[in-house]
Amino acid sequence: MTKIEAKLKQMGYELPKVPMDMKYWARCKRAGNLIFMGTTGPWPIVNKTVKGKLQGVIGKDVTVEEAKFTCKMSALSILAALKNELGDLDKIDKIVKLEIYLNGPSGDADPYVAIADAASELFIELFGENGRATRTVTPNLTNIVAELDMVVSVRD
Amino acid sequence: MTKIEAKLKQMGYELPKVPMDMKYWARCKRAGNLIFMGTTGPWPIVNKTVKGKLQGVIGKDVTVEEAKFTCKMSALSILAALKNELGDLDKIDKIVKLEIYLNGPSGDADPYVAIADAASELFIELFGENGRATRTVTPNLTNIVAELDMVVSVRD
Amino acid sequence: MTKIEAKLKQMGYELPKVPMDMKYWARCKRAGNLIFMGTTGPWPIVNKTVKGKLQGVIGKDVTVEEAKFTCKMSALSILAALKNELGDLDKIDKIVKLEIYLNGPSGDADPYVAIADAASELFIELFGENGRATRTVTPNLTNIVAELDMVVSVRD
Repeated sequence: MTKIEAKLKQMGYELPKVPMDMKYWARCKRAGNLIFMGTTGPWPIVNKTVKGKLQGVIGKDVTVEEAKFTCKMSALSILAALKNELGDLDKIDKIVKLEIYLNGPSGDADPYVAIADAASELFIELFGENGRATRTVTPNLTNIVAELDMVVSVRD
Repeated sequence: MTKIEAKLKQMGYELPKVPMDMKYWARCKRAGNLIFMGTTGPWPIVNKTVKGKLQGVIGKDVTVEEAKFTCKMSALSILAALKNELGDLDKIDKIVKLEIYLNGPSGDADPYVAIADAASELFIELFGENGRATRTVTPNLTNIVAELDMVVSVRD
Repeated sequence: MTKIEAKLKQMGYELPKVPMDMKYWARCKRAGNLIFMGTTGPWPIVNKTVKGKLQGVIGKDVTVEEAKFTCKMSALSILAALKNELGDLDKIDKIVKLEIYLNGPSGDADPYVAIADAASELFIELFGENGRATRTVTPNLTNIVAELDMVVSVRD
């Protein structure tokens, strides 16, 4: 087992199964040393009780605590998509950009920042400073609580 | 005529005229082998009846079928902008990222996915696997039904 | 003083102090010659009366004129973040992509374009054609009037 995956296991996480065979879009597309990724939602994590809600409006149907869990599920899902693409998460150099899409009304930044931090915290615990990405948090179009995509750089 | 444009013609499409001389922003900006693009809306296609509606809220003023057509118009418009920049669409290596902005309320993903697929289908028919981009579908700020931008890589 | 900063001063602007030590995200992340940036809001400009409103809905709590000023504040703030990262703004080759997040309801494009232009105008006055970036204007999730992020290329 590679270093990053061993660390993930040690942190108590496992990667969900994420479909990679979409007809009309790709999860990963490489250009030079950059991998651009498609928006990835929260895929169920095997052997874990799903504590996050997948759909609903933050602050109305879904609490901030629930949304943080959903956001973390999306973070693990996008790592699963990257592993599928790269074979090995140790090939990741750094997360360059993290885009987080949250399903909530325009309003006070604090709860949204807290939800986004749940994903960022996971990446930083895993990759250190290389996981502390530039970040954008914008409204989701669908009723999924939290989705994300990112741009990562990979080692040669 | 180049291969991609011949294929486009064979598919029954032609490229609309898209203005390239905006004072405050650019349609294309190149960095290395990547071309980043500005958001491009649906420009009218000569000799075609415009079946899509340009403005309105999806699901209220505009049906999903109409929005699919508008999304395809934006796809053709952004190809026109790329041709203007590159001279020849055969220089495109692949579409790395496709961002689609739809004017509709937060809700069920299915109709929005169907609308986005209309643009993706066109790119895949044209470029094969190289047209199957990573994709993000987010809310539009303006009342234009469907707009898009993308990142493409070009051949040296 | 470097050329770009001298020009900025000559234009009557100064750079605000922008925090760079966020725990969970980074303002800048470099990959090759590209710098991706995190979303940056309007930081107060020393010695200037803040004429823009920081929070509120455009068209309801905030006029277009006020939002233009706020958008310009965010433009100066992101330049401050870049200076902090690069040491010297003369290292910027060009602004490749500019993403602007505005807090307003979906609607007529004209006022939003005018607000976004306030940031673009500043970058173009400063960097010429290299400041005329590709541009996306989308809804903000938070109640901050205008925020922005960008991708820039830097000289070797």
